[in-house]
Amino acid sequence: MQPVRRPGGRTARVRTAVHEAVLDLLREESWDDLSIALVAERSGVHQATIYRRWGTLSGLIDDMVNEQLSQGSPVPDTGTLRGDLEAYALKVADDVASPMGALYVRAAMVGSRGSEGEVYLMNRGLRLQAMLDRAAERGERPPTLLELMEVVIAPLYYHAIFFGRPVGPDHARTLVDRLLSLRGSPG
Amino acid sequence: MQPVRRPGGRTARVRTAVHEAVLDLLREESWDDLSIALVAERSGVHQATIYRRWGTLSGLIDDMVNEQLSQGSPVPDTGTLRGDLEAYALKVADDVASPMGALYVRAAMVGSRGSEGEVYLMNRGLRLQAMLDRAAERGERPPTLLELMEVVIAPLYYHAIFFGRPVGPDHARTLVDRLLSLRGSPG
Repeated sequence: MQPVRRPGGRTARVRTAVHEAVLDLLREESWDDLSIALVAERSGVHQATIYRRWGTLSGLIDDMVNEQLSQGSPVPDTGTLRGDLEAYALKVADDVASPMGALYVRAAMVGSRGSEGEVYLMNRGLRLQAMLDRAAERGERPPTLLELMEVVIAPLYYHAIFFGRPVGPDHARTLVDRLLSLRGSPG
Repeated sequence: MQPVRRPGGRTARVRTAVHEAVLDLLREESWDDLSIALVAERSGVHQATIYRRWGTLSGLIDDMVNEQLSQGSPVPDTGTLRGDLEAYALKVADDVASPMGALYVRAAMVGSRGSEGEVYLMNRGLRLQAMLDRAAERGERPPTLLELMEVVIAPLYYHAIFFGRPVGPDHARTLVDRLLSLRGSPG
């Protein structure tokens, strides 16, 4: 059967197959065992194709992170500051526990995150600031963006990185409580 | 000249030369460019020797992290809770900004940290708990170990990982202020 001909069709399918193979493998294997040979075997895409397109395993991982980041993710808009913060904290807790979250932290760590990574961080910052601004407009007393990152987001990453334990919803809410209490307004 | 003969002498020298080469390279190159070939060139140790001893670049990095962790590091004992917390925060801020700090986070990330890593985390926790206990014995109101990790340590790592910016002493002190204010005792 003749494949449907459209510009980038095959290229896009190869990309998707390879990305899915990496995420699959990360669910099963340790990072150390990850290799282009294994990704080729799992995805059914030739090693030579993978090397030609991505160069190295690091190049492939950066491409995955950039694709994910370019999709962005909406920030909550629940109508209350506490609701928004809890929804956001729970989402981040889920994200960092996923293989994609591990890839993202790794890409940040190895310093190979390119301009797309910078754009993502800036855009996410702007969206979160807008979420906090909405709270201020409703007469609530939101934290600063830096406080949100340090008091809620940083511990979520820290637990995932150093203790490999997902932070459950109750713990995520405790972090939000702490953030809200900084302003003397425990919601 | 005949080298001094002692058990493990050459082995130890090779290990030191290779470890130093990795840290040197990380100060100059991105992670992506790091390779056993480069480490061999910089250290003057044959590639074959490196492969035989450490197997992979990941194996080499784990060995470095484990050696560093096994040395441990004392926790401050300045006589006041605030003094201890500030000294510890400044030390962690310095550590995470160093190439060794980057290796440590990477080892935690890739999940290859072995039992030595677990022992380190446990020992560090015990030493920090002793620091907090000393404060309680003096009649101060220390935070819990979890609060210390989440409010002070996690943001230091987060800034280093995602923004690649060292956190200066003033910022580190702000984190300690925040921790102390949790108990309504701003020191």
